[in-house]
Amino acid sequence: MKKRETTDPIGMMAAQLSRLPGIGRKTAMRLAYYIAAQPQEDVRELATALWQGRRAVRMCSRCGNYTAQDPCAICADSRRRHDTLCVVRDPRDVSAIERMHEYHGGYHVLHGTISPINGIGPDDIRIKELIGRVQQEQIREVIIATNPDVEGEATAAYIARVLKPLGVLVTRLAHGMPVGGDLEYVDEVTLNKAFEGRREI
Amino acid sequence: MKKRETTDPIGMMAAQLSRLPGIGRKTAMRLAYYIAAQPQEDVRELATALWQGRRAVRMCSRCGNYTAQDPCAICADSRRRHDTLCVVRDPRDVSAIERMHEYHGGYHVLHGTISPINGIGPDDIRIKELIGRVQQEQIREVIIATNPDVEGEATAAYIARVLKPLGVLVTRLAHGMPVGGDLEYVDEVTLNKAFEGRREI
Repeated sequence: MKKRETTDPIGMMAAQLSRLPGIGRKTAMRLAYYIAAQPQEDVRELATALWQGRRAVRMCSRCGNYTAQDPCAICADSRRRHDTLCVVRDPRDVSAIERMHEYHGGYHVLHGTISPINGIGPDDIRIKELIGRVQQEQIREVIIATNPDVEGEATAAYIARVLKPLGVLVTRLAHGMPVGGDLEYVDEVTLNKAFEGRREI
Repeated sequence: MKKRETTDPIGMMAAQLSRLPGIGRKTAMRLAYYIAAQPQEDVRELATALWQGRRAVRMCSRCGNYTAQDPCAICADSRRRHDTLCVVRDPRDVSAIERMHEYHGGYHVLHGTISPINGIGPDDIRIKELIGRVQQEQIREVIIATNPDVEGEATAAYIARVLKPLGVLVTRLAHGMPVGGDLEYVDEVTLNKAFEGRREI
């Protein structure tokens, strides 16, 4: 049995690599051949990082972000303003906002968006936990930063509806022209939002 | 020390993934977040496949192709014509030719091409082994299938020069228009080779 598994080591590596998103059969083969030519020690480091990394990842019990320690570094940071919560779909979105270095509040990661066609309702994402935090923590503002697509907008609308009765300020990221963008290439819906949101200069 | 390593599991995974060719920082982060969200068992399978795959890979002592068993399946296959050798740069090239299902001879993998500017001479790739095989095995024809670029051509010319005195037929893959290609987009050098190699129909 063991012998059979290792009959084609390149194919075995490629099969696993091709399960990753955006990595097709050809790329997986290319990577497998590359890995086959690397020093064993380097490959051990890669394999160990993936396995140990996955084992170390847990979800922050407060905000839902990925972390090695619970609570996460952001929730545990006393210099941040924990009266403001930014609601995002994925842990990746937290990284994107943190890279901006301008937001200093807390987060709440939903781990999904409401999507009736995919059978994902409000109870399937971390909305109950968000309501609980607004009730128990001293939250002044909830900034909804779900994506500006159908599911993100529906999720934002739902959250606004359930949070407003709790007396918290609920806001949504602005829509408009991307900075450095070209008016000619901005889609009509975004352009319309940019007109609606125009400000005096 | 251990604690420090696992402080940012996502970053740890991304750092290792970004060492793979064609995987930049952004792709590595995307993959790391994806892996973080997968079941531990799946990630263990991936890590194990990479590590066990790398450990299982060895070089066929005859042809130089990657294999789990030595000699490799191609060298050990008695139905193949072992009086013909196809000389390629990399194990990947063997895969490419095998996918064609039309070549039934043996291989010789050079693991590189002669490249003076990179300090790679004839002794740094498996040319000595090729000469040894031509002297010891009953080789009738050596088909040189190195890439049609400067280094591949230089390597082909060198090999032809050292093998011809041994009385073996040395051939080179034909140059020409790619099948399904568009004449308008074929580069001039290839077009010229296609003219030179024209055949009566």
